Amino acid sequence: MKSRALAAMSPSASLTRLDFERRDLGPHDVSLEISFTGICHSDIHQVRQEWGPAIFPMVPGHEIVGTVSAVGSKVTKFTIGDLIGVGVFIDSCRTCSSCVAGLQQYCENGMTGTYNTLERDGKTVAYGGYSNNFIINQDYAVHIPANLSLAGVAPLLCAGITVYSPLKKWGAKPGMRTAVMGLGGLGHMGVKFAHAMGAEVTVLSHSPTKEADALEMGADHFVCTKDIAVLKEHQKSFDLILNTVSADLDINLYLDLLALDGTLVVIGLPGNPYEVNIGALLNGRRRIAGSMIGGIPELQEMLDFCGQHQIVSDVEVISADYVDTAYDRTVASDVKYRFVIDASTI
Amino acid sequence: MKSRALAAMSPSASLTRLDFERRDLGPHDVSLEISFTGICHSDIHQVRQEWGPAIFPMVPGHEIVGTVSAVGSKVTKFTIGDLIGVGVFIDSCRTCSSCVAGLQQYCENGMTGTYNTLERDGKTVAYGGYSNNFIINQDYAVHIPANLSLAGVAPLLCAGITVYSPLKKWGAKPGMRTAVMGLGGLGHMGVKFAHAMGAEVTVLSHSPTKEADALEMGADHFVCTKDIAVLKEHQKSFDLILNTVSADLDINLYLDLLALDGTLVVIGLPGNPYEVNIGALLNGRRRIAGSMIGGIPELQEMLDFCGQHQIVSDVEVISADYVDTAYDRTVASDVKYRFVIDASTI
Repeated sequence: MKSRALAAMSPSASLTRLDFERRDLGPHDVSLEISFTGICHSDIHQVRQEWGPAIFPMVPGHEIVGTVSAVGSKVTKFTIGDLIGVGVFIDSCRTCSSCVAGLQQYCENGMTGTYNTLERDGKTVAYGGYSNNFIINQDYAVHIPANLSLAGVAPLLCAGITVYSPLKKWGAKPGMRTAVMGLGGLGHMGVKFAHAMGAEVTVLSHSPTKEADALEMGADHFVCTKDIAVLKEHQKSFDLILNTVSADLDINLYLDLLALDGTLVVIGLPGNPYEVNIGALLNGRRRIAGSMIGGIPELQEMLDFCGQHQIVSDVEVISADYVDTAYDRTVASDVKYRFVIDASTI
Repeated sequence: MKSRALAAMSPSASLTRLDFERRDLGPHDVSLEISFTGICHSDIHQVRQEWGPAIFPMVPGHEIVGTVSAVGSKVTKFTIGDLIGVGVFIDSCRTCSSCVAGLQQYCENGMTGTYNTLERDGKTVAYGGYSNNFIINQDYAVHIPANLSLAGVAPLLCAGITVYSPLKKWGAKPGMRTAVMGLGGLGHMGVKFAHAMGAEVTVLSHSPTKEADALEMGADHFVCTKDIAVLKEHQKSFDLILNTVSADLDINLYLDLLALDGTLVVIGLPGNPYEVNIGALLNGRRRIAGSMIGGIPELQEMLDFCGQHQIVSDVEVISADYVDTAYDRTVASDVKYRFVIDASTI
């Protein structure tokens, strides 16, 4: 299938227009016309090879929403015209215990990313969603509720599921005191979801200017951590903390905020290891957990939840010629709260 | 009450015989004649002030078993002649949510240790179990099943509950692949309990000579970690790992042994922070948790479990004049698997 895209031709170049061929539509595939694709910080890490050697040309983008334009002969899950979403992976082994459990993100043989990798045939390069169209196996795509702003849905496919999954896993519900560290692309979705699940939500942010937004999104409390000493006033206060901050920090100050049996979930990937004082874990039977995106069943569940609760991401919709600038602003945390590319401008 | 004890008069001195007065028996107290008291590594840390300034003279000992010799006017839980056990704490605030939940070890106002502290009146020094007798509020003592070797029961009051509690918390049961790091005072109890709970038990130990003991105690597998590279063969193999090792180690090598949703519970207190690679937590939704002894209801539950399953600690019973040597051998991990003082020799 003929496609056009914004592609990184090398780690240092600006993104440029690329015309290329996607693989043919297989019997279990659907093709989609892309409406919007979110810009995830991980796109930048991969383009700039901050996560290791990458495949160029690279078409980034794994927060993809669009409309089904064709279906393969064996497709039963979608019909032409359906709204459709594609997230961080497009395939997995399907046979390991993780895949069988619908937790394809933890595939023991490695999930297949949406771009910057080879498909499972070992030779087809996967090109992502900064593009006008896409082809994907039906099992790895999801339905999008019709009542939501499509642009605001795009970031749900990565940023949204990344916070939704640990909130569900660790039981966010009424009465659960939940803190969200950082109010960015991930954090602002954490606030919306935790609030919708009925939890008492506190935002911990070093930016005092974000208080109004936090409360507007559903936070019950806002703690400005610019003076880190303020944390001492909140010891043993939270049952669940979502850490969306990938910058270096003293994690022990935050572990001390956990009440008995509390859990701090790390979902950002910091560049350096955490130095964890084990005494902080022993005291109060606390724990640190990791969580990584979500599986296909949970991705669908989240989108249905969003439809029921009218939840989307706060986005700045941009055109293709603004992507380089958007990258710089994303790195500077200067976005409210996620850039989304209008695919019609590509 | 007149008492005699083995006491540390200063951090550097040998333990010596001390005659002293315990507080009077209150209406809710019981007194006991001590039969055996275990030597816990934490006794040594406290005597040697490795955990901060201590109160001298100090009578260590918080693994105490004996026979009730007198009861206060309001005591209903015990009668004279009952077998009785005392563990790591003798009181707590009784009103915080942890205490109300029976998790007195996490008392938000601080549990009262069995020795090297003041009782909650703020003035009575608490003297521990290297002694011929003891006085304790009935609510903080437990019953001991009659069918167990009393000497082997003593270490259950600290070493036993320290491993029993996290095994219960994290659901050790048939089908759960459980690893125990270190086969010492804590670890050997972890093997016995995990085996009795039906889990598949693997011992990870750097001492190849411990394999026979490990298998005898109920381990299904033994992995000698002297060559640490062997761990690579066991990645993603365990649902639960109990880390009883307080020596410095690369915790990430062990996190990689956890399967999906696996938990590594730290129960030894290492001297230095762990450097945790967060990627190891994200991958497989793993977690590190802490656990600290257990509350009074769980202590009783554990002793009942031991009675049902004929579980006691492996001990070397020693007389009072051997305690200094036993301390040195404990520090050198040269004990199978816990020293217990015969209180009749004090």
